[in-house]
Amino acid sequence: MRPAEVIRRKRDGGTLDRESLHGFVRGFVDGEVAPYQMSAFLMAVCLRGMVPEETADLTRVMVETGQVLEFPAEGGGLVDKHSTGGVGDLVSLPLAPLAAAAGLRVPMISGRGLGHTGGTLDKLESIPGLRTDLGMAAFGRLLMTVGFAMGGQTGALAPADRLMYALRDVTATVESVPLIVSSILSKKVAEGIGALVLDVKCGRGAFMTSEEDALRLAGELARVGALLGLEVVAFVTDMDAPLGTAVGNAVEMRSALECLRGRGPDDVMELVGVLGTAMLCLGRGGVWEENAARLRGVLEDGSGLARFRAMIEGQGGDPGVVDVPERLPRASVRVTVTSPEAGWVQDLEPRALGEAVVDLGGGRRRAEDPVDPGVGLELLRRRGDRVEAGESLAVVLASDRATGERVARERVAGAYHLGPEPPAARPLVRRLVTAAGSVPWRGASSWTEGMDAVREGKAR
Amino acid sequence: MRPAEVIRRKRDGGTLDRESLHGFVRGFVDGEVAPYQMSAFLMAVCLRGMVPEETADLTRVMVETGQVLEFPAEGGGLVDKHSTGGVGDLVSLPLAPLAAAAGLRVPMISGRGLGHTGGTLDKLESIPGLRTDLGMAAFGRLLMTVGFAMGGQTGALAPADRLMYALRDVTATVESVPLIVSSILSKKVAEGIGALVLDVKCGRGAFMTSEEDALRLAGELARVGALLGLEVVAFVTDMDAPLGTAVGNAVEMRSALECLRGRGPDDVMELVGVLGTAMLCLGRGGVWEENAARLRGVLEDGSGLARFRAMIEGQGGDPGVVDVPERLPRASVRVTVTSPEAGWVQDLEPRALGEAVVDLGGGRRRAEDPVDPGVGLELLRRRGDRVEAGESLAVVLASDRATGERVARERVAGAYHLGPEPPAARPLVRRLVTAAGSVPWRGASSWTEGMDAVREGKAR
Repeated sequence: MRPAEVIRRKRDGGTLDRESLHGFVRGFVDGEVAPYQMSAFLMAVCLRGMVPEETADLTRVMVETGQVLEFPAEGGGLVDKHSTGGVGDLVSLPLAPLAAAAGLRVPMISGRGLGHTGGTLDKLESIPGLRTDLGMAAFGRLLMTVGFAMGGQTGALAPADRLMYALRDVTATVESVPLIVSSILSKKVAEGIGALVLDVKCGRGAFMTSEEDALRLAGELARVGALLGLEVVAFVTDMDAPLGTAVGNAVEMRSALECLRGRGPDDVMELVGVLGTAMLCLGRGGVWEENAARLRGVLEDGSGLARFRAMIEGQGGDPGVVDVPERLPRASVRVTVTSPEAGWVQDLEPRALGEAVVDLGGGRRRAEDPVDPGVGLELLRRRGDRVEAGESLAVVLASDRATGERVARERVAGAYHLGPEPPAARPLVRRLVTAAGSVPWRGASSWTEGMDAVREGKAR
Repeated sequence: MRPAEVIRRKRDGGTLDRESLHGFVRGFVDGEVAPYQMSAFLMAVCLRGMVPEETADLTRVMVETGQVLEFPAEGGGLVDKHSTGGVGDLVSLPLAPLAAAAGLRVPMISGRGLGHTGGTLDKLESIPGLRTDLGMAAFGRLLMTVGFAMGGQTGALAPADRLMYALRDVTATVESVPLIVSSILSKKVAEGIGALVLDVKCGRGAFMTSEEDALRLAGELARVGALLGLEVVAFVTDMDAPLGTAVGNAVEMRSALECLRGRGPDDVMELVGVLGTAMLCLGRGGVWEENAARLRGVLEDGSGLARFRAMIEGQGGDPGVVDVPERLPRASVRVTVTSPEAGWVQDLEPRALGEAVVDLGGGRRRAEDPVDPGVGLELLRRRGDRVEAGESLAVVLASDRATGERVARERVAGAYHLGPEPPAARPLVRRLVTAAGSVPWRGASSWTEGMDAVREGKAR
């Protein structure tokens, strides 16, 4: 089918078969389909959608434009975790070494921060010397010896995704469920994994602000994953307040090291526990409680931390940061934001804090912007905390005082909303989503219920 | 508004203001908005549409990317005619000189053929030496002395339209009412005319196959024209069979010369009469019957033919073709298609005949293809005609016998469908459409009715 025919069919709401999608996407990577044809197609997909089988085919042809990693069968289940992104979301950093220590292999390909959300790669690179542009061979060796590796998307894996994403960003075609699903899953399928645990965030700090939209995206990820032979479970989690107590790169890395010592913020520790246990259930089998205990074990005996240190060494970084976190970069200027009144933190706006880090130079407005690893925010008070008048709310780490004070005043102070009562409790993990449907998250029993539904093929 | 914001707003079904459209379209012409952004926008317009005010604003900003022709006020009303294109539609060729002879000025900018429909420029250029790439000054002089000129779209008039159209053709964004309307009207507004008569064709040989779609397009052209200060009336006419008896370039030019001598095919003469009378009513005022008589007068006294000769001379062509049409190019091979049986021509498929001319080398598959002016079809029998077994149906004019015989066999013979009865009569001119609505066409009384509705602002 000619490129214009492919576009026309999608424009008119038709379903494209795998062969047509293959010709179009392959042609785009090879330069035979022009960027203006791809962008018209992407807009048509935005407005007409795709059925799950079609999204699976699109994902497959994107994967086929590059390499697929292959690892020896022995050595533990290949499982990865992916988050749709939020503010203060450092979960991958402690999670990957813990899952590896508990017996999985985690070939984690991560992204960089863009806009108000941070990226795992930027946080990793706050470790002096650490490289994320490992070759395939080095990445594979690390996976076999340390059990996990953390790299960036290279041109070798699903190159179509990188080229398509660059266009989507400038043509208002980012917000489309089939395009988001194919983008996420193409990279994960290319990693050669067998199962994937997703953290689909919802709330003002997330890509999907409503739970309904997050559920729709999570459901489609699980269904399309199943069509691709990839076992996908997703947790819809809260991102209406920042996660943890740190926003920035080195500052989140320091918090991640605390997590690996069992002393991380309660919400981060909770997410690490839920997502890590789910990874173990999928990659090793067994019941929830057994895997949760196993994960706790590798946290408490320090073997997670040891794996993290081994990864840093393997990726050329300074392993000394593990014991002396002061070796991580830290901006020289500290501006403290104090509370003008007493009260309870009713609300802490995540997006304003993410934007604050971008203003400080720790994030990106455009993909090509450099980032300053040492700047960021330390959140001394969080949603639900009590504060007295004159007490500190947060510390802004800036490279110069003028910027630090401006960000403290314009972004951070306004992100805190105080009230006379404590706010209502909000569950962090809201729902478990599988290809069979979704259930509210209430711990181990919900897992059993969700997995039973998948086995029985029940849709809810 | 940033380009991606403009695209996003249209994607989400919003209405764009003139300033946003101006920045986007101007930026595209200047190279600041990338082709892939324009094509995503065009697809969003295809699927989300535009309100008439928005289409008028888009048209205005397209006009503003180039020059607008200006002519002295004295010298007759400035009126043009445009057809949405069909097979055998040579109406512009006799119509423009007749309207000029009757006192109008017609600055006709025409297009080239693409696909199964022919283009006025290609037909004109079958006259040896005739140039259609006149400069603005020469075009203007001819308009003032001869009363009409026939040129091609230059880079000077609405350059945005040319650039946008080139993208639309390869991104499946041609079929969109607001995009068609803004494309047609931007060129016409740039001509500096005050009124426009449109021939919106419907049927299998036209761009709009259903009367409903043609009416929708015609109504939008009239409404948006009114918002732009351009008086637009449209006739929805039949294109379910080819118009006239000739399909091709020189062969249609020969037929046009016959029309100017009052001996053209009845359907072409009818259309010339209706469209020309409407042009006179809009450009000179007065009632239908008076203008119809005036048009007949300049046909019968030969002054239309004299104007045509003067235009040919003015545009550098050989005026001898007017008296000796044999000087027009004519392909050397004639292949006659005969009828295998006796009967009535129930149906004559226009698209197959248009494609036949493309196969012969007289049309274009792509915009850059050259055309052979001498090839084409002479239709000896038309819809509604009686034919006996063994009698001729049509003659194929080809540059070589093998091609001529193949086209005769594969395209032309199959386009004729015979039956034992004459087919039901079909009106050629179906409806009159104005900004106030549409009325069935029944001649002079319909004109009065339609124009009264416009004056009274009645919508039907």
